[in-house]
Amino acid sequence: MASDDDQKVRVLGVWNSPFSAMVKLALKLKGVQYEYIEEDLQNKGPLLLESNPVHKKIPVLIHGRKPVAESVVILEYINETWPENPLLPNDPYERAQARFWAKFIEEKCGRAIWTAYGTQGEEKEKAIKDAEEGLKILEEGLKGKFFNGETIGFLDIVACGIAFWLPVLEEAADIKFFDPEKLPRLRCWTEEYTKVELVKEAFPPRDKLLPAFKAYRDQMFGPKDSST
Amino acid sequence: MASDDDQKVRVLGVWNSPFSAMVKLALKLKGVQYEYIEEDLQNKGPLLLESNPVHKKIPVLIHGRKPVAESVVILEYINETWPENPLLPNDPYERAQARFWAKFIEEKCGRAIWTAYGTQGEEKEKAIKDAEEGLKILEEGLKGKFFNGETIGFLDIVACGIAFWLPVLEEAADIKFFDPEKLPRLRCWTEEYTKVELVKEAFPPRDKLLPAFKAYRDQMFGPKDSST
Repeated sequence: MASDDDQKVRVLGVWNSPFSAMVKLALKLKGVQYEYIEEDLQNKGPLLLESNPVHKKIPVLIHGRKPVAESVVILEYINETWPENPLLPNDPYERAQARFWAKFIEEKCGRAIWTAYGTQGEEKEKAIKDAEEGLKILEEGLKGKFFNGETIGFLDIVACGIAFWLPVLEEAADIKFFDPEKLPRLRCWTEEYTKVELVKEAFPPRDKLLPAFKAYRDQMFGPKDSST
Repeated sequence: MASDDDQKVRVLGVWNSPFSAMVKLALKLKGVQYEYIEEDLQNKGPLLLESNPVHKKIPVLIHGRKPVAESVVILEYINETWPENPLLPNDPYERAQARFWAKFIEEKCGRAIWTAYGTQGEEKEKAIKDAEEGLKILEEGLKGKFFNGETIGFLDIVACGIAFWLPVLEEAADIKFFDPEKLPRLRCWTEEYTKVELVKEAFPPRDKLLPAFKAYRDQMFGPKDSST
């Protein structure tokens, strides 16, 4: 018999991680109550180590006693476990398109954006170029107000780093990933996205993110770094 | 109204690619008839360029006029479009576990194995170590005869490179990725896998793969390469 404990939902995360934010937002969009547990990555807790022994990384969703790791895998699990407010389209072909773009966002855009933030010199320049290219292609894939139409869904969640973290990383690491005039759909999408109430609840505010990411960059390259 | 053309299934692939083989095997397991089109990657055909304009890579599944790219996305699409002989478990939690391991196989094992084959010296040594580590972890995730029980499913398909290509790459590039005595579950799994009739139909035979991968390596590093 299912007890309350079997239904309890916990999220292990880090406050400034877009991957943790994805999981929080998906649960909020589904109306699922959860307990959020902030992890200290310098001193990982036993719950994280035992619930994601392979990668020892956040985020982890623990549903009852069952842990799920990897943000996109967690999103699919949330969508299949709580069918209300579907995050993915019903049609298998449209669902395949969403999964294709999710992979693209993760592997082409996200990876390049984080690399640009975390490197200097040539490596940084190359990553900025890669990110620019990825974002340009993504612009073409964006057809409506959100990626799958009029409401926020799977792909918008996966792309949250582009709406929220990208402008912060740009300022923290003195980067310009794209000219909003040249990618008008991505610009409008960011504006619409950041207006949504549930999104504001799930995501950390810019005025907390910016000093944190400035400080990490200073730690990596020194506080007076102004090189490209 | 659906015409025959809307139902026609085509696969664009390359004969020696495990990613192409995954798609073929999934269709065979579903009993879906398809037309296979061999692509020349040195001279990509218009059908490939227009059906995967983002990556311009194989494999692509074209269902009617609708193209799907990215091997794991294709597998999910096949599974959802033809419900007979499910490739993924019915339970959302088990399905999440399968997706977690698929990502692990792709990103940890597969990437390292191909890097080891395609490099030399320190880079090769590091990749061999990474692959060894990944395969050791994968061994622990393997519980039954196949990854999801008694019959071949999603994860076995995703891991086909480990059963079929790994031994070929080992011989072609003078590598030992793992000692079969130390990873007995992976060894048994490989033996069972390679016995399955449909698998033999979908995958290229070792005696064709080996000279091809020896020749590619010779092209990269010269025919007399015996360095690590």
